[in-house]
Amino acid sequence: MGNDKTGSDGYSSERGTDLGERKIIEILSSHFETMPNMPVPFGDDVSAVYLDQKQVAVLKMDMLVGKTDVPRNMSLWQAARKAIVMNVSDFASKGAQPKAALVSLGLPRDIMRKDIEEIARGLNAGAREYDAYIIGGDTGEASDLIISISLFGTADKTALMLRNGAKPGDILAVTGFFGKSASGLRLLLDNYSLSSNLSEVLLNAVCMPKAKLKEGLALSESGAISASIDSSDGLAWSLHEIGKMSQVGFIVNSVPVADEVKRFAKFNHLDALELALYGGEEYELVMTIKSKDWADAEAAVEKVGGCLLPIGKATKDKQILLDVDGQKRVIEARGWEHFKSKI
Amino acid sequence: MGNDKTGSDGYSSERGTDLGERKIIEILSSHFETMPNMPVPFGDDVSAVYLDQKQVAVLKMDMLVGKTDVPRNMSLWQAARKAIVMNVSDFASKGAQPKAALVSLGLPRDIMRKDIEEIARGLNAGAREYDAYIIGGDTGEASDLIISISLFGTADKTALMLRNGAKPGDILAVTGFFGKSASGLRLLLDNYSLSSNLSEVLLNAVCMPKAKLKEGLALSESGAISASIDSSDGLAWSLHEIGKMSQVGFIVNSVPVADEVKRFAKFNHLDALELALYGGEEYELVMTIKSKDWADAEAAVEKVGGCLLPIGKATKDKQILLDVDGQKRVIEARGWEHFKSKI
Repeated sequence: MGNDKTGSDGYSSERGTDLGERKIIEILSSHFETMPNMPVPFGDDVSAVYLDQKQVAVLKMDMLVGKTDVPRNMSLWQAARKAIVMNVSDFASKGAQPKAALVSLGLPRDIMRKDIEEIARGLNAGAREYDAYIIGGDTGEASDLIISISLFGTADKTALMLRNGAKPGDILAVTGFFGKSASGLRLLLDNYSLSSNLSEVLLNAVCMPKAKLKEGLALSESGAISASIDSSDGLAWSLHEIGKMSQVGFIVNSVPVADEVKRFAKFNHLDALELALYGGEEYELVMTIKSKDWADAEAAVEKVGGCLLPIGKATKDKQILLDVDGQKRVIEARGWEHFKSKI
Repeated sequence: MGNDKTGSDGYSSERGTDLGERKIIEILSSHFETMPNMPVPFGDDVSAVYLDQKQVAVLKMDMLVGKTDVPRNMSLWQAARKAIVMNVSDFASKGAQPKAALVSLGLPRDIMRKDIEEIARGLNAGAREYDAYIIGGDTGEASDLIISISLFGTADKTALMLRNGAKPGDILAVTGFFGKSASGLRLLLDNYSLSSNLSEVLLNAVCMPKAKLKEGLALSESGAISASIDSSDGLAWSLHEIGKMSQVGFIVNSVPVADEVKRFAKFNHLDALELALYGGEEYELVMTIKSKDWADAEAAVEKVGGCLLPIGKATKDKQILLDVDGQKRVIEARGWEHFKSKI
């Protein structure tokens, strides 16, 4: 905070595209006075406010913009549902149940009534799928389709799985396989080809993402999780974020690449690891667990029909490394980023 | 709810500009399943969720769009501050203290760093002015400047001043004089003229609006208010909204036109009443009070340095009438409306 350097030449003439989403957020938050006694630090997946000594209000706000977040083939119903799902995913990663959503819609002047109805149905479907309700919002004119969602719930402070609790030696695990959204996006945008069965799986990952809320709630209740994040900016980025917030590094021994992604990559001469590590727009949970608690965590997530895949270990050394068959390479700090990435 | 008529021809080909903001909100909400046990009905100034039998979480979301909500001469700092103030005003009208704000920013790709910093400072200033903090949010690319705000606080359910409690015979009152924003906007946009002293007052009303939070909190605590709304869509519209939600009408005996507005109107051959009744973008509170509680309400608001101006009475007859010197005329149900109004 207070790192205010406006006015120094050149420096302040940087533009959004030079800065990127993450630097812009850093600039913004450096100008915000910090609320005393914040239960969750600025920059975690959700924000929170103490309600009493035990309970917190959990809040999340994330905006979907038609131009950058909605590929051509995605319907308005799917886009509206996805706007809710991406917010629910952040609740899932903290182990908090969302109760209510508010929606601010920016709509083009000439939007048709049937499109408004389709958006409304998609929003309602997304909320009800995760047992939340839409309770308010507003609308106004905008050049793009804007779906800004605010999600509210409550939780015990101690049940929240933050990004900053990983310790060296903890097991690194994820709730599913990676790379399907990145592959699906390439299918949609770059005319890569594939058999129709496989295509459906990959396109579905883009257009009908699922938040791992059941898994997040069960894992939170198990008390076994030391740190957690969702993977919406990509697996690699998630590892770097947990690493930074927890002051640890990671050695990843196996990257959980989805079978469909391996086949898509092989067929199109792409790098499956690249798709799985750096793709983003995926809503798996990335977590660390103390070895002694592993069985509890696994039992909890399997009880709700999910899975927990161990993929590596947290280390004292702060590098994020891939170590497969004894060959080590660095996992880079890159992933999906607004202003810089393009769909 | 459930009033779903998509697909019937012609009907579903209506567009945003035909429908207008209020009809669009009606269409949207008709597709949202209603949350059981809502402490505040859909369509009031804020939304709410029960935390326990007594306390509620108060939530509000409202979006500022550069193209339609920010006149040329308004700075980015002012626009960002105003985005917060317009949300605080809704809290004020219910008598709830905002604690925390989240912000979703849509920014043009080529926005400059100094503009981002100016927006951040304006957001922080707006929040701190009303004793709230910004605790989170996100950013992404958009064609327009989009400042979407979500505001959170808590309140006793019984302390919330809803729109639906007015009874025939209640005194109708407001917290200040009207028409300054409408006049200021005309000064900014239509090249009307005025002495510079007066201009400053009117432009200030547009660029530096104030939410009547102190007044709202004091009046809520007094227990004297039977219904309340903020006047952001104009005084006339506010009367129609309270009337509709409370099943009453109003006779207005004196329209509280600001002196500056009278002089601006006279100088430019405009109708001062029109500016005061139908202008909008004003953040006074419009309330009803039982006669026996009037002294309590007045004392409460004066104690915090505000004022309460009686302007009429609620009536059993559901018309909204202006009755000055025995001449009755209808106050129309119009005011500021996105998709239909233009700044």
